[in-house]
Amino acid sequence: MQDTDNRVDPALVAGNRKKLAGYAARHFGWSVQGKVATITLNRPERKNPLTFDSYAELRDLFGQLRHATDVHAVVVTGAGGNFCSGGDVHEIIGPLVQLEAPELLMFTRMTGDLVKTMRACPQPIVAAIDGVCAGAGAIVAMASDLRLGTTRSKTAFLFNRVGLAGCDMGACALLPRIIGQGRASELLYTGRSMTGEEGERWGFFNRLCEPDAVLAEAQKLATDIASGPTFANGITKTMLHQEWAMTIDQAIEAEAQAQAICMMTEDFTRAYKAFVARQKPVFEGN
Amino acid sequence: MQDTDNRVDPALVAGNRKKLAGYAARHFGWSVQGKVATITLNRPERKNPLTFDSYAELRDLFGQLRHATDVHAVVVTGAGGNFCSGGDVHEIIGPLVQLEAPELLMFTRMTGDLVKTMRACPQPIVAAIDGVCAGAGAIVAMASDLRLGTTRSKTAFLFNRVGLAGCDMGACALLPRIIGQGRASELLYTGRSMTGEEGERWGFFNRLCEPDAVLAEAQKLATDIASGPTFANGITKTMLHQEWAMTIDQAIEAEAQAQAICMMTEDFTRAYKAFVARQKPVFEGN
Amino acid sequence: MQDTDNRVDPALVAGNRKKLAGYAARHFGWSVQGKVATITLNRPERKNPLTFDSYAELRDLFGQLRHATDVHAVVVTGAGGNFCSGGDVHEIIGPLVQLEAPELLMFTRMTGDLVKTMRACPQPIVAAIDGVCAGAGAIVAMASDLRLGTTRSKTAFLFNRVGLAGCDMGACALLPRIIGQGRASELLYTGRSMTGEEGERWGFFNRLCEPDAVLAEAQKLATDIASGPTFANGITKTMLHQEWAMTIDQAIEAEAQAQAICMMTEDFTRAYKAFVARQKPVFEGN
Repeated sequence: MQDTDNRVDPALVAGNRKKLAGYAARHFGWSVQGKVATITLNRPERKNPLTFDSYAELRDLFGQLRHATDVHAVVVTGAGGNFCSGGDVHEIIGPLVQLEAPELLMFTRMTGDLVKTMRACPQPIVAAIDGVCAGAGAIVAMASDLRLGTTRSKTAFLFNRVGLAGCDMGACALLPRIIGQGRASELLYTGRSMTGEEGERWGFFNRLCEPDAVLAEAQKLATDIASGPTFANGITKTMLHQEWAMTIDQAIEAEAQAQAICMMTEDFTRAYKAFVARQKPVFEGN
Repeated sequence: MQDTDNRVDPALVAGNRKKLAGYAARHFGWSVQGKVATITLNRPERKNPLTFDSYAELRDLFGQLRHATDVHAVVVTGAGGNFCSGGDVHEIIGPLVQLEAPELLMFTRMTGDLVKTMRACPQPIVAAIDGVCAGAGAIVAMASDLRLGTTRSKTAFLFNRVGLAGCDMGACALLPRIIGQGRASELLYTGRSMTGEEGERWGFFNRLCEPDAVLAEAQKLATDIASGPTFANGITKTMLHQEWAMTIDQAIEAEAQAQAICMMTEDFTRAYKAFVARQKPVFEGN
Repeated sequence: MQDTDNRVDPALVAGNRKKLAGYAARHFGWSVQGKVATITLNRPERKNPLTFDSYAELRDLFGQLRHATDVHAVVVTGAGGNFCSGGDVHEIIGPLVQLEAPELLMFTRMTGDLVKTMRACPQPIVAAIDGVCAGAGAIVAMASDLRLGTTRSKTAFLFNRVGLAGCDMGACALLPRIIGQGRASELLYTGRSMTGEEGERWGFFNRLCEPDAVLAEAQKLATDIASGPTFANGITKTMLHQEWAMTIDQAIEAEAQAQAICMMTEDFTRAYKAFVARQKPVFEGN
């Protein structure tokens, strides 16, 4: 409980607080409704491939979201009935086959950095996935926190189909944690598509929706989450990432510290007061 | 094979061997049948919430179980058709909103210590879960080794409903290992209830039972386990905990050492002799 | 793109490149068709137990496979409708009960080394599992990359039935990653059999086949994988193993480096050229 009148502007502490509702995206769609931003990969005639430009802009945008004060959850989707076909063959693979090792590492680090910024921003990310979800597109889905699919979704880690290893942008670490080591191994060694039903059974998709409803349901879910205690939700995201390779005892101590911080927030007090008053709490994210 | 007549009393080595069958519990029910203890959270009119007192006593009791010689498996359950409603709003959340950071950390460390002592005692723990299993109650369920549920079970990590993060008592480390990263993320970000059927499909529950049979089935399972080689079962529990964040190669070496110790036990010899004699082995836990 | 005429013989670099198609196995069956080797545990009258000799030969053979140039995938199966009954009671357990601690550790390290060499060789391993799959046999199944089962498969980690701990050859690390912590705990504490249907639902089996088809389907799957980019597949296997206990960020950097190497291979160029020419790529593994 603090006197809020003479407080230091918190922006001074973080150094770079941002408003992103008005962000002008160049290589994909960006819209903000309430506290929820929607990113739409939108080259539907090619099933929404990624290019050098869109990779870099996505990486930078998620980097900025780390400091955004006006966006509390993010939805990622694709236009025209498909999610994302991955790295474009002509615009990405063609150039890559001509590069030397240090340049290739620049590229693989850039794509990996997209996953890092998606995991490092405090906003929970909900992917709305219909149709093709392939290659780097499947990684973007995995780097999201939650995934809604459809019975038409075809998710393929097709790296070995283009002569590459399944270890792309963290896939060999992320996929086994989501669907288990045996199922992940099959998808990574064969490049075969996982159907929507398989994805739901295996825990890749949180649920399946009708194709014409999946985006709206993802936005609804993101809106619900954004109406929660957003500071605490950001800590949940940090800890899900942070505890990945800790021992149980380390994780318990880390959570004791993290939760003690959350117990200092006004949102915790708001929830308690609302409960005592038999009301629904209205969280403000601080 | 050792001469057992002139042996040093093993209690001298451990320093604090205990008998717990006669333990007089103050804040929950405690009963011991054979080698199996049953802990019953028993404030059914409030759906068995945890209080500062019951947290501390549970932590201390599981700490003592580490040295108990007369209890070989533990069942945890709740009275009156519910498992546990978590930290009591009036008796825990009310005081917490008034505390300072160091005091809050004292609390979150105490609750985390309960999970640590549940994991550190050698007895496998079977949770019998009907009805409400919420907040810290859901963590106690996760800190158990096995979980039997019912179709009426409602398991909710509802920390974000009270303005807190999902990272409570190890949840962000434990839950993804049990049900997968994607499903765990949904439960922790939304606080929604997992149904009994979902829990069984996702691997949270080992199986579902009829509500009036779930406790008896948990006790039966615990009794079966307690009739096994209890020293070796304790090593299994230690290693499931210990290898959490090891590399595969480290885990293999750790198991080579741990299993070599077990091969020195009389129970291993008993099993071999019984097999040769076409009998069922009778294990004695040494 | 390199001039291949004046290249250093790569065998000089690795030091010990091997051809294994003509390997004469002594304690199990060994056959090679195309690039796929099949290992058949073949003492069907005892359900294919492992012995000191077969453990050691399997460990050494998988160690040699690390350097083999003519085998790109491996199938492991058992003769006569069963996979493997584990360590033989008379030939292994009988001697073990007479050994001292350092000798027991020699044994548990040898069995663990089999898992290490199975994980360290670059060839994906497909297990074809019908009937009994028990004890060390269940570990060999887990140390494989992919598993095809049948409705008759009975997979049992029955270590505690013989007075031992469930931590054998890496089981407490491997099994939770494949089927989840809760299900793994039940199988390890009780030693009960997992049915084929459970194994498929839980992600232990990639799919179930008819008993008389499971070997052929495993060989078909291995042949498909062997026709892929085998260098890259070996990197996938290395990274699935290597990233086991890394943080997400470490895994992403490790994959950036590993994938950059794969982008230097001819197979990556072959896939690009085939795609542009609207043909199916023919990979050569370099």
